[in-house]
Amino acid sequence: MPLVQVTLIEGYSETARVRMSERITRALRATIAAPLDGTIVAINELSPSSWMRGGKSFRSPGPELPEAAQLVRDFLEAMQSRDLARAQGFLAEDFVMEFPGAKRMTRLAELIDWARPRYRAIAKNYERFDECYTDDATIVYCHGTLQGEWPDGTAFSGIRFIDRFTVRAGRLADQSVWNDLAQSRAS
Amino acid sequence: MPLVQVTLIEGYSETARVRMSERITRALRATIAAPLDGTIVAINELSPSSWMRGGKSFRSPGPELPEAAQLVRDFLEAMQSRDLARAQGFLAEDFVMEFPGAKRMTRLAELIDWARPRYRAIAKNYERFDECYTDDATIVYCHGTLQGEWPDGTAFSGIRFIDRFTVRAGRLADQSVWNDLAQSRAS
Amino acid sequence: MPLVQVTLIEGYSETARVRMSERITRALRATIAAPLDGTIVAINELSPSSWMRGGKSFRSPGPELPEAAQLVRDFLEAMQSRDLARAQGFLAEDFVMEFPGAKRMTRLAELIDWARPRYRAIAKNYERFDECYTDDATIVYCHGTLQGEWPDGTAFSGIRFIDRFTVRAGRLADQSVWNDLAQSRAS
Amino acid sequence: MPLVQVTLIEGYSETARVRMSERITRALRATIAAPLDGTIVAINELSPSSWMRGGKSFRSPGPELPEAAQLVRDFLEAMQSRDLARAQGFLAEDFVMEFPGAKRMTRLAELIDWARPRYRAIAKNYERFDECYTDDATIVYCHGTLQGEWPDGTAFSGIRFIDRFTVRAGRLADQSVWNDLAQSRAS
Amino acid sequence: MPLVQVTLIEGYSETARVRMSERITRALRATIAAPLDGTIVAINELSPSSWMRGGKSFRSPGPELPEAAQLVRDFLEAMQSRDLARAQGFLAEDFVMEFPGAKRMTRLAELIDWARPRYRAIAKNYERFDECYTDDATIVYCHGTLQGEWPDGTAFSGIRFIDRFTVRAGRLADQSVWNDLAQSRAS
Amino acid sequence: MPLVQVTLIEGYSETARVRMSERITRALRATIAAPLDGTIVAINELSPSSWMRGGKSFRSPGPELPEAAQLVRDFLEAMQSRDLARAQGFLAEDFVMEFPGAKRMTRLAELIDWARPRYRAIAKNYERFDECYTDDATIVYCHGTLQGEWPDGTAFSGIRFIDRFTVRAGRLADQSVWNDLAQSRAS
Repeated sequence: MPLVQVTLIEGYSETARVRMSERITRALRATIAAPLDGTIVAINELSPSSWMRGGKSFRSPGPELPEAAQLVRDFLEAMQSRDLARAQGFLAEDFVMEFPGAKRMTRLAELIDWARPRYRAIAKNYERFDECYTDDATIVYCHGTLQGEWPDGTAFSGIRFIDRFTVRAGRLADQSVWNDLAQSRAS
Repeated sequence: MPLVQVTLIEGYSETARVRMSERITRALRATIAAPLDGTIVAINELSPSSWMRGGKSFRSPGPELPEAAQLVRDFLEAMQSRDLARAQGFLAEDFVMEFPGAKRMTRLAELIDWARPRYRAIAKNYERFDECYTDDATIVYCHGTLQGEWPDGTAFSGIRFIDRFTVRAGRLADQSVWNDLAQSRAS
Repeated sequence: MPLVQVTLIEGYSETARVRMSERITRALRATIAAPLDGTIVAINELSPSSWMRGGKSFRSPGPELPEAAQLVRDFLEAMQSRDLARAQGFLAEDFVMEFPGAKRMTRLAELIDWARPRYRAIAKNYERFDECYTDDATIVYCHGTLQGEWPDGTAFSGIRFIDRFTVRAGRLADQSVWNDLAQSRAS
Repeated sequence: MPLVQVTLIEGYSETARVRMSERITRALRATIAAPLDGTIVAINELSPSSWMRGGKSFRSPGPELPEAAQLVRDFLEAMQSRDLARAQGFLAEDFVMEFPGAKRMTRLAELIDWARPRYRAIAKNYERFDECYTDDATIVYCHGTLQGEWPDGTAFSGIRFIDRFTVRAGRLADQSVWNDLAQSRAS
Repeated sequence: MPLVQVTLIEGYSETARVRMSERITRALRATIAAPLDGTIVAINELSPSSWMRGGKSFRSPGPELPEAAQLVRDFLEAMQSRDLARAQGFLAEDFVMEFPGAKRMTRLAELIDWARPRYRAIAKNYERFDECYTDDATIVYCHGTLQGEWPDGTAFSGIRFIDRFTVRAGRLADQSVWNDLAQSRAS
Repeated sequence: MPLVQVTLIEGYSETARVRMSERITRALRATIAAPLDGTIVAINELSPSSWMRGGKSFRSPGPELPEAAQLVRDFLEAMQSRDLARAQGFLAEDFVMEFPGAKRMTRLAELIDWARPRYRAIAKNYERFDECYTDDATIVYCHGTLQGEWPDGTAFSGIRFIDRFTVRAGRLADQSVWNDLAQSRAS
């Protein structure tokens, strides 16, 4: 207990079915204190012509969605290696960024310009990614520490950061960043 | 499509059943691009003696869990009104806090002492709460802006913050805070 | 085989559940040659808060519909006893009637006037009622024989008739009548 | 709501599964006022050795039945083109016909003879076919207008007709006809 | 895995539902090597008007059957205390008994007479009862040891026995007995 | 009624599915007086990646178990033909045997030695095998009559016997034997 039985149109990958089962397991166990080993998810697959809603047979099932945390990870990696073209490919049309002390930016080049006087190099050590599922988007949080070099070439590390992304329809819609860079420079 | 049928021991509140259905709906739609109005969750309730696992009848279903975001909200409200006794009631035994530029703190009184020279008054305007369900805890994020008074009495507002909480077994296990206070003081 | 499991919001009457089961049984056995005693319908009832579609909990289930054949029977009885007020109560706003050799009529009084020179009295002996379920209406057919008196007072009986009604949202939307009255008068 | 889950032995065609789903959808919505887009039919298919009733494994599922309205349409077309051999193939052994003003006929040749003095040519324009599913037969109704030539060669058209057929085990068991031919001749 | 979902007409006692679940669990695990704690039985209860087979609503569910092993135990206890009237109440009309070296007996009084010269007193120590479910009866086996007194008053004990009973429709249809009494007397 | 729906990982043989269905049918009908032809078992098969318990996808389903009564039959046949090597293959490591008047034996050779002075030849005519499913073993009973030759060469037949075996994990764990040999020799 509880038992969850999902009916799907056939054809979803093993990855999608396992991921779905894990997420449902967690959603349930965040709501009621169900023992893990008594929580069961079973997926039943039907052919499209075996499913009718509203008097209409099913035509084609919605595609599997990429894992939002992985999208974010790939974007951040492209940014870190300054592969702006690749990074751009992850972004929604109306993507906006919010960084500490900066006005809202919409283009990656803006960000690069803005960062230049602030640090000469930067890299992220991730402690954890979290995904939060909402009605129309997945929110991805990642936090950890920054390491790099100040404009004068001295090194820094262990500076706390957190990023928040809205992933909608497989694209990043926004990025918000908080970190202790100012705190560290000040001290 | 998809159709989710949940079997539960009878007795869960309407709130729990609706919450569970919403969370499952979101978990599914974060995994496959299912149309919202074709996503169905039906909950079937059984009496305890109608469920057997491992040759044993069910005895008592796990309790409903409080909404983690609400716990966090209540804790933050108690802190803001400096009701430390009430705030303490939300905390796990081994609760730890991490604030920008501070060493890790474990007692609320420590935090009050640490904050005193930093600002005379502070309040949070919440933009949004997010919940992430993991295998053994719910992570709650909330972000928005801070307003208050610096030690010299001048007012501040609109300073970005984000808090991250781990909620486990109905208690807050940790709090991590990031904000632009240092950035603002510096500018 | 086949087995049909229906999930409904709780609260439908025994009559509705039995009628639904019978109709599903017949719909199935008109499609595949399933043995009657192997055709099973089981109805599972859920509380409204245990059903979610499109992220919304169920509010109120659609009402039970009256049996269309009974509506027709009641209307015909009211007409036969010339209780036009009662008969009118069964009709949709845009009700139309089609009788052999008549222009389309919309008011019951028109029909009475039209019938007066054709027969002095008339009554229907029903052989059978049939209901056909369509996407937005139930079609009711009834056939049998007419008996009554010609304008000159001579009696007639055994004259074949068939009526066809469209029942939509609990009202009669139209009536079409065919019979052998002209044939009988001619012979 | 409502949700219908059908369990069938595997092997039925897509046509049969879709037709079954449509008919069940209509049967339900004729009984309770369920919204069309919330009415779901899902078909689960099992292998014959995965179904046991009465302690006996399933052997062979009942065949799909032809669409009764199509059978009637094909029969009427054969009659209209005077292909009596083909028309005869649709009839049950004990087929009977009932026409306005005629004694009951059992052979198609009888009908041809009976019709000869009544009209020189005739064709049906169908307005609609309706199917009504009963415990042991499907009743098919079709109505529309007749056009053709009277014995004297003058043309007629727009004369209302309705036919009623009982289809049992894939054969036509009877035909009853009503029309306004006598009415038209009289006027 | 495996998951078993039983649909019953509502009204069976908790005892019956638990017993049914246990027996199904054992039947499954005698067929496939399923882990005990992954074997689940869930019972769903429907109102009688929510179940239709063969076009007929359910009327009254079959009664719960007594536990066959308990019936046997009660019968043997009545016999041991020579309460023949009570013992007789457990027997089917055509009850027959088979004892080592005896002709088939049908009346309890016969057995008492037959036993008299064989032992003066006898009692059974049960080691175990087993139930085997067949299509139309439950077979109950019990074995253990006999103790008592030989006709000459000397005591005996530890003599192996096994009894086999056919329980049909809540009555004992036959009893077969094997034991080592002759072996013991011989040695 | 009742309806049993079993969900299994796909891949079990037709034999296993049919056997499981029969055993569940019997287990149910030993608990409630359900009509045989209204007792239904349907087995639904899922792919391993469509089943999750305790947050873990299914890896490999437990194997099908041999039919315990057949194992016993094969063992007894090997013993009767004195194929001790083959017979030994059916036995668990800690197999023990209990025969009338004998001390407990653990090796087949012991039994052969013990039997030699008791009868020169022996064969079993089986009347019936019964299987009883318990939490961790299947108990097999078989009874019937013995025929053979006494040590002096005279024939015997029709001597009642019953054997009881515990079958665990596909091996015979013990055998207990009762019969009327001593009774017959005595008389």
